[in-house]
Amino acid sequence: MVQFRKKMGRFYGLISFEEALQRISSTSWIKPGTMSVPCSDSPGLIACSTVYSKSDVPGYHRSLVDGFAVNSGNCNDATETNPVKLKIIGIVQAGEMASHYAGAGECFEIYTGGRLPPGCDTVLMVEDVERETGFIIFSRGPEPWENVERAGDDLHAGTEIVRGSSIIRPWQAAAMISSGIPEVGVFRKLRLGIISTGNELFRESENFIENTNQIMLASYFRRSFVSTEAIGILHDNQQEISGKITESIQIYDALIITGGTSLGGRDEVPDAISRIGKVIFGGVMMRPGRTIALYEVNGKPIFSVSGNPVPALISVEEFLERYIETVIGITGLRRKVMAKLSCSVTNRAGYTTILRVRVRNSEDGMIAEPIVSHGTGKLSTMIGADGTMVIPGNVEGYDKDQIIEIKFFGDSN
Amino acid sequence: MVQFRKKMGRFYGLISFEEALQRISSTSWIKPGTMSVPCSDSPGLIACSTVYSKSDVPGYHRSLVDGFAVNSGNCNDATETNPVKLKIIGIVQAGEMASHYAGAGECFEIYTGGRLPPGCDTVLMVEDVERETGFIIFSRGPEPWENVERAGDDLHAGTEIVRGSSIIRPWQAAAMISSGIPEVGVFRKLRLGIISTGNELFRESENFIENTNQIMLASYFRRSFVSTEAIGILHDNQQEISGKITESIQIYDALIITGGTSLGGRDEVPDAISRIGKVIFGGVMMRPGRTIALYEVNGKPIFSVSGNPVPALISVEEFLERYIETVIGITGLRRKVMAKLSCSVTNRAGYTTILRVRVRNSEDGMIAEPIVSHGTGKLSTMIGADGTMVIPGNVEGYDKDQIIEIKFFGDSN
Repeated sequence: MVQFRKKMGRFYGLISFEEALQRISSTSWIKPGTMSVPCSDSPGLIACSTVYSKSDVPGYHRSLVDGFAVNSGNCNDATETNPVKLKIIGIVQAGEMASHYAGAGECFEIYTGGRLPPGCDTVLMVEDVERETGFIIFSRGPEPWENVERAGDDLHAGTEIVRGSSIIRPWQAAAMISSGIPEVGVFRKLRLGIISTGNELFRESENFIENTNQIMLASYFRRSFVSTEAIGILHDNQQEISGKITESIQIYDALIITGGTSLGGRDEVPDAISRIGKVIFGGVMMRPGRTIALYEVNGKPIFSVSGNPVPALISVEEFLERYIETVIGITGLRRKVMAKLSCSVTNRAGYTTILRVRVRNSEDGMIAEPIVSHGTGKLSTMIGADGTMVIPGNVEGYDKDQIIEIKFFGDSN
Repeated sequence: MVQFRKKMGRFYGLISFEEALQRISSTSWIKPGTMSVPCSDSPGLIACSTVYSKSDVPGYHRSLVDGFAVNSGNCNDATETNPVKLKIIGIVQAGEMASHYAGAGECFEIYTGGRLPPGCDTVLMVEDVERETGFIIFSRGPEPWENVERAGDDLHAGTEIVRGSSIIRPWQAAAMISSGIPEVGVFRKLRLGIISTGNELFRESENFIENTNQIMLASYFRRSFVSTEAIGILHDNQQEISGKITESIQIYDALIITGGTSLGGRDEVPDAISRIGKVIFGGVMMRPGRTIALYEVNGKPIFSVSGNPVPALISVEEFLERYIETVIGITGLRRKVMAKLSCSVTNRAGYTTILRVRVRNSEDGMIAEPIVSHGTGKLSTMIGADGTMVIPGNVEGYDKDQIIEIKFFGDSN
């Protein structure tokens, strides 16, 4: 036990999962910069402040159908026995404005999207009228504003279009453009660099292992608002590691460094980073991935994770999201659903467990099937999984049929 | 009514939503090409055939913990009163191979991920032994394979890693690489071109309207396996339209063309495309978007949709997905969940209605809140929505609390 305690000492003591999240929230990280982009380029980026409609959308009353624009006041007394006859004095198509006013006894032919001519407030559907050369006849008095989308019906000036710190969706970009907003302020993409360490990752190693960490992490964490880059494989050498970090932290907003976090002999990564930065935490009571550590160097986070790709991905995900929430203010990066457990699951006291689950739909709602395996680091636990569920450290487990929250994997959400 | 029938005639008669899907499935479209890519570049692309593990993963027995590798047969009689003492004859780290064999009375110090030395089948955790210079002492006889991940434990040679016609996930790329597969066959990205038509989209128009169709459709349908491009705004001019299509269909796998589909006067798009291609359908009993039409030109699909961005997006989505399913074999492009309706919804007889819904989680499961609005084409019905629900034409509606299927919007899934 002495030997073990000494080694754990390098991790400054394991803390709870919740405490780790809390420490991320309360650290003063450098915030990513903001910039202005044309609204047409904005979908997928994160708005840095709330955007309100600048004008009414649509900007004028327009027809929702093909038909005839009339003034309802001139013909609302039409009945089967007393049909009304109006003279067609022009045609209005989308993109055109009527050149004159519709008076009593007059109407305009109008197409979907067409702007209501002055003097008109209603459109009779083409199906609802009879046509005689130059005239229409109808036998039902229309209500005002029938088949018309009024100015501002979609968005009134001042309506919220995009909330600050949320991802801009395609229709929000369209709404901004429609309401006369050409550009929008966004956070620039977060740049995430991924470094791998390990002598076994070099081809000359006797037990050479292909480096799958970088591929998994770089492709998994790539988002419309996060760019990721694999930025090198390093030997288990403190100088090499601290040199690379010092250089990379100038360029990237955050780093993930894999490997060298064994509780055992080779602790090159913690030793290397401790020299140049501050420890936020070292080791978390979670599985998989209890060796995860977080450092702050120049106001930026460096996540040190297992060299085993699955624990690396699973353990860093929640913390990286908390960091992004903290600096950008966005929440709910992964889609959450509620599902009924297909079997009971148990927890190890004090440990927060992150299980992979398969989710399927049934007539009664959604079912979550935990993928249980001895050894939590297997790629096979990910294949076929849709997302994860968390069992907090103070929960002994969940019963079959209990409804729990599932987060879908972030690459597909 | 005569006038209306004549105009509808241009749409060759509205067909049911199901019939439209069926016609897409049964058309012989040109399939997109395939290519081979390094597995590291494959996440997000679609595998063109099923991939099986080429070798066992891991390739050798490895330690799951920090501790001591022993032969369980040599020490399974250890007890509190009869502890066993073994000599440490070497250290094994990840990436290293023991240079010699562990005989009776011998063991190796080993770190997580280390390869079991010959003669060893079990690892004693560092916490479970006492250490004396050069020796370990322990009082519990271990089982064979304790704390060891055996060769092939994660993936046996021959295990399915990726199913053909499915999106390759990050861990599947990692699994292929780990099992010795350097490259994988994938469909090349589908190229989707988006053309807008409409005199009102030109700045010189009296009722100039900003073109938000292309932005919405191009950003919405962009995927890891679909590239989208806005390829021009055209006047309502048949020659201009048919010329652009003839040119673009050489380059793109599929086209969407917006505008010019009014049931009314300006049917430039149907008239232009009918000349150069075959009508698959023209008009569908669905809302929004009944004016949607599909043409086949040179074995490729051209979707003609409303000039109004919301009906355009909603109506083309299901059909575009069916086309992708048909040519690539992939299903379930959008994530589906089951949710309980927060209120009743009604349908218009014969029409398939696609409603936008907001989805929220509750302790009892998921709740779907339909976003109901007069006029289905509003941007405001999209803002705040998470996805869509479909009411088939033969269903009158759904009751409050009924459990229905929701598809999340494809841009965020």
